[in-house]
Amino acid sequence: MQGFTLHPQLVEDCHELGRLGASRVLLHRNASLPWFILVPEVAVEVTEWHELEAAQRRELDEAICRVARLLRRQPQVRKVNIAAIGNLVPQLHVHVVGRWPGDPYWPGVVWGRLPAGPEWLPPQPGAWWAALQADGPGPASVE
Amino acid sequence: MQGFTLHPQLVEDCHELGRLGASRVLLHRNASLPWFILVPEVAVEVTEWHELEAAQRRELDEAICRVARLLRRQPQVRKVNIAAIGNLVPQLHVHVVGRWPGDPYWPGVVWGRLPAGPEWLPPQPGAWWAALQADGPGPASVE
Repeated sequence: MQGFTLHPQLVEDCHELGRLGASRVLLHRNASLPWFILVPEVAVEVTEWHELEAAQRRELDEAICRVARLLRRQPQVRKVNIAAIGNLVPQLHVHVVGRWPGDPYWPGVVWGRLPAGPEWLPPQPGAWWAALQADGPGPASVE
Repeated sequence: MQGFTLHPQLVEDCHELGRLGASRVLLHRNASLPWFILVPEVAVEVTEWHELEAAQRRELDEAICRVARLLRRQPQVRKVNIAAIGNLVPQLHVHVVGRWPGDPYWPGVVWGRLPAGPEWLPPQPGAWWAALQADGPGPASVE
């Protein structure tokens, strides 16, 4: 989308990996667990899931599933947590987080539990992106 | 779905309102805020969003949007929080929660913050269900 810009808080919190369909794919800097954030490229006024058009929701859903499949392929991941919250950052974004018994926040949720953990170091963010693209035929493209 | 049963924890925590599409519609007993839970009637082995078939995800998405629209019609609600977590209750279920600045948990998330608040009293759960059905043409049906 022309003129689309990420919310500064998301830029600060995340590595920007690329794009799946019409969503930006971010990796949260907290490397305690694999924590992706999908940001559909829509007008700034669209802040709720149900305000997306049906085709946009389908595209976002496909990106969510792709990230979730990648997460479930990680040996330690036993559960995927998915959430659209946005109480603090109004730009519509969806968290997709790999979880397991014994992760630093288990069984609680990750939101509101920062600060935390180590950072991903190169080449880890790029490796996550490569793994996401290797899912098979799909709309993945590097920015 | 034949033989489908709700997880006992969801039965304990919620009022069962009815069904939208192929999802059971629950209202969390915590009346501090309008907190719905959608439970797709799928096999017990299906515990992740991405494990649903595409048609099932679309149907669940429609139910989510219907609940979200109802929530945004409430004067106090300023944000809808949507989440599939399932770290404690493995049965796939999606939270759809109406939030506003000044609600008891704002700006934090509601998960993991119980116990709390008053209970919904009759006829409130039924009134929520009636409001949900009044959304317009849709798959709503009383159990």
